[in-house]
Amino acid sequence: MQQHVFQEGDRVLIVTEKKKRYMVQLRSGKKFHTSEGFIDLSNLIGQPSGCVLHSNTGAVMQVFKPTFLDLLIFLPRTTQIVYPKDLGYIAAVSGVGPGSRVVEAGTGTGVLAAFLTYLVRPTGRVYSYDVRLENIETATVRMRQLGLLDYIELKQGDVCEKIVERELDAAVIDIPEPWRAVQSCYDALKPSGVWVSLSPTVEQVVQTYEALEAGGFSDLSCVELLLRNMRVKRGMTRPEFLMRGHTTYLVTARKILR
Amino acid sequence: MQQHVFQEGDRVLIVTEKKKRYMVQLRSGKKFHTSEGFIDLSNLIGQPSGCVLHSNTGAVMQVFKPTFLDLLIFLPRTTQIVYPKDLGYIAAVSGVGPGSRVVEAGTGTGVLAAFLTYLVRPTGRVYSYDVRLENIETATVRMRQLGLLDYIELKQGDVCEKIVERELDAAVIDIPEPWRAVQSCYDALKPSGVWVSLSPTVEQVVQTYEALEAGGFSDLSCVELLLRNMRVKRGMTRPEFLMRGHTTYLVTARKILR
Amino acid sequence: MQQHVFQEGDRVLIVTEKKKRYMVQLRSGKKFHTSEGFIDLSNLIGQPSGCVLHSNTGAVMQVFKPTFLDLLIFLPRTTQIVYPKDLGYIAAVSGVGPGSRVVEAGTGTGVLAAFLTYLVRPTGRVYSYDVRLENIETATVRMRQLGLLDYIELKQGDVCEKIVERELDAAVIDIPEPWRAVQSCYDALKPSGVWVSLSPTVEQVVQTYEALEAGGFSDLSCVELLLRNMRVKRGMTRPEFLMRGHTTYLVTARKILR
Amino acid sequence: MQQHVFQEGDRVLIVTEKKKRYMVQLRSGKKFHTSEGFIDLSNLIGQPSGCVLHSNTGAVMQVFKPTFLDLLIFLPRTTQIVYPKDLGYIAAVSGVGPGSRVVEAGTGTGVLAAFLTYLVRPTGRVYSYDVRLENIETATVRMRQLGLLDYIELKQGDVCEKIVERELDAAVIDIPEPWRAVQSCYDALKPSGVWVSLSPTVEQVVQTYEALEAGGFSDLSCVELLLRNMRVKRGMTRPEFLMRGHTTYLVTARKILR
Repeated sequence: MQQHVFQEGDRVLIVTEKKKRYMVQLRSGKKFHTSEGFIDLSNLIGQPSGCVLHSNTGAVMQVFKPTFLDLLIFLPRTTQIVYPKDLGYIAAVSGVGPGSRVVEAGTGTGVLAAFLTYLVRPTGRVYSYDVRLENIETATVRMRQLGLLDYIELKQGDVCEKIVERELDAAVIDIPEPWRAVQSCYDALKPSGVWVSLSPTVEQVVQTYEALEAGGFSDLSCVELLLRNMRVKRGMTRPEFLMRGHTTYLVTARKILR
Repeated sequence: MQQHVFQEGDRVLIVTEKKKRYMVQLRSGKKFHTSEGFIDLSNLIGQPSGCVLHSNTGAVMQVFKPTFLDLLIFLPRTTQIVYPKDLGYIAAVSGVGPGSRVVEAGTGTGVLAAFLTYLVRPTGRVYSYDVRLENIETATVRMRQLGLLDYIELKQGDVCEKIVERELDAAVIDIPEPWRAVQSCYDALKPSGVWVSLSPTVEQVVQTYEALEAGGFSDLSCVELLLRNMRVKRGMTRPEFLMRGHTTYLVTARKILR
Repeated sequence: MQQHVFQEGDRVLIVTEKKKRYMVQLRSGKKFHTSEGFIDLSNLIGQPSGCVLHSNTGAVMQVFKPTFLDLLIFLPRTTQIVYPKDLGYIAAVSGVGPGSRVVEAGTGTGVLAAFLTYLVRPTGRVYSYDVRLENIETATVRMRQLGLLDYIELKQGDVCEKIVERELDAAVIDIPEPWRAVQSCYDALKPSGVWVSLSPTVEQVVQTYEALEAGGFSDLSCVELLLRNMRVKRGMTRPEFLMRGHTTYLVTARKILR
Repeated sequence: MQQHVFQEGDRVLIVTEKKKRYMVQLRSGKKFHTSEGFIDLSNLIGQPSGCVLHSNTGAVMQVFKPTFLDLLIFLPRTTQIVYPKDLGYIAAVSGVGPGSRVVEAGTGTGVLAAFLTYLVRPTGRVYSYDVRLENIETATVRMRQLGLLDYIELKQGDVCEKIVERELDAAVIDIPEPWRAVQSCYDALKPSGVWVSLSPTVEQVVQTYEALEAGGFSDLSCVELLLRNMRVKRGMTRPEFLMRGHTTYLVTARKILR
């Protein structure tokens, strides 16, 4: 067991003295500038993970090896991210873990696909569908970057029309009209297989429920998760004043035999 | 790919017409009685997962192959369970996945240990400590039952005094005085390694924060998750009237070098 | 200024040592029995408000002059109560206070009507409509009991068909189909007058919104309030484990001129 | 009953087409400028409340007679406002209404004092204490503006040292160290009188609880209220993405005799 030492090309999480967070790729000869001064990235190469250094203006900079979630959160994106609270819940209720075979759609920016792929390694597989070639191409680059490309199949296609895989353990559906994917997911899932869909609005949830009940699914549930950050400091402990009020509803169901 | 067929000794999840849920082990010759009538378990053997049958009084009974979470939720227990919302969040923020090496304490009824072990298979390891031999023995039986015994080491001992493992990816601490485990976890974790602790009260959180800050951890956060169940039915959709108001605060931190 | 002394016929709030709460009317010669022993109500007559006595088994019993809210909460009822959090919000956003003239429907058990009437005294008026004569009769008895009968007019009639009053300050509508009352409330309210309706389901809210927008109202909002009880005790402080997950959505709007 | 017509000097609430909200005092000859164009305030004088007009660029502007809450929300302020959800709850649990006699501290920007005064009119009184003369002076101007000066006594002084009033119905305490006001409030309240204090942090709540229990109060409770705004639109209904995560804890108690 050897200590992790930062190398050229590594992505590192830098947390500044003022608690700002940056994901930075190490390139020798490059400087990383913040409003709290800069650091020379060359100085980080060869340093151990978890090291602390100072910017040119004396600000403390902590440098971490990112967790997988850090990497996901810092993926560039144009669409809504799936939040950690929701990612975790999806993992827990779907039972997705090492060896699971999962269909996921739409690929989008790849955050949800990457998280699921991370969990099913090395023997499982994620089959991620998106109608837009552009999303598939971007996600391919990212999955390679994240070291996940061997465990995911990125497929251009409409998950609502055809899923070629069969006997899957779970379907995780994050598209605007999830009810359109009920039939194809029913065909692709094992009996007892788990459906999870994400929808921000109540009307989407109602329509998805009706399609699931009509389409051979049972044991339906719908939840939403609220995350409260606490500010913790002796004598001044309280929930944070600002919070995210809503991200998505999560609908789950299971395939029964008809 | 072959369809799953129920066999003698399988655990199955039975959902009744009135939405009651039972985990039942299949034994030929046994009957399973509910307030909605009984079913003869012999009839289930050889049936496919996801099948639907009727009790002697005509009630519909759906029979599922349980997800891993189902198995956890139905473990007999004397102490407070860790809730799915919290399990999932722990998985997401800790980055625990296939191959991770994790210390966990106290073992207790084994729910949290089992969930982490499920995620680190087959190449990772969970080292689960508990001071009480009784808990270690019970957990050993359960991990065998869940097929996880090869991926976890259950150890009688006080996680606050000594963790023999080194260079671990994460420490997940669910004991009444988590601040006492800060030093031993610091020694056991890799730099950048993740601390997650669970505490129901604010004062525990404050004391843990102070110990973490004094003990070489940084990037602290504290959150709580609220889960709302929605009742979904066209024309009658609303949040459920009853909800769990609190389970635990989750404190996270990362090891820095000193 | 003289201290309040309990008299024959007074309603008192008794809080037992185990924190159980009872509303009791004082009758000399009567005993009040609880699982923590009994007290002789004769002994309370002539005692000051806020006194403490012991049951025959030695349990501490605190005896308070009830607040108006206590009286409301303990009204016998067959239908859903309006919760204090919602009552207070209705008062704040509607601007109902001394002198306000308010239409309210349906009277139901009279809790909401009584609360509003309490606030508009002595110069304002509440006009409370209910289609059921039985509700009007029961509410009449209660308003008399609460000393509010001079400030409220209880009227059998359908608020959706006709409100005879004009130039009202606010309309507070707690009926299953509030959208049916939009037209009559528009006619009855002053310009800038405030609409508040209570509906437990999302679909009711959507339909009410559409009727309000079509019916001459503007500045719409919809909120829900979550109340968390805290268990406070040094070293053990946390939110309560159980909470009410939902009571009602509150829709507000204001009349504009067309 | 005559329709309200806007006059010189009136404060009006203007809601723009883009849902921006402004409190504006009518002055003939003045223009009111927004990013959606301007309106000539002279044109509003003589118009009825609830009227709709257009800015020079054609944007719809709705003009309302403000509710009392609108007036409070738009008071200029330097310190934290008390939120409507909390104001309403304080009114409900304290039983403050017409005729109530209430001590309030600190006056601060006067929002809470004004709300309570609005409720106790015309026969009740609010006694509002603040140690800073400046706050008393500013509040005096505002209470006059709001037409409440006859119903409130604004007093420079430390509520923790001496409250000269006696037999009060309620004490509403919004100061950083409410525990210091327990003794003086005990002396000033009627038996069964209600204490309400507002504190943002958990540690303040714990210390207040201990002082109340030691100081002759009983029937303690602590709550917090979360307000969720809903975005309502058929087919797109959901909670708003942003919400206020925390404002204050509310501690209530009642005086018992010792």
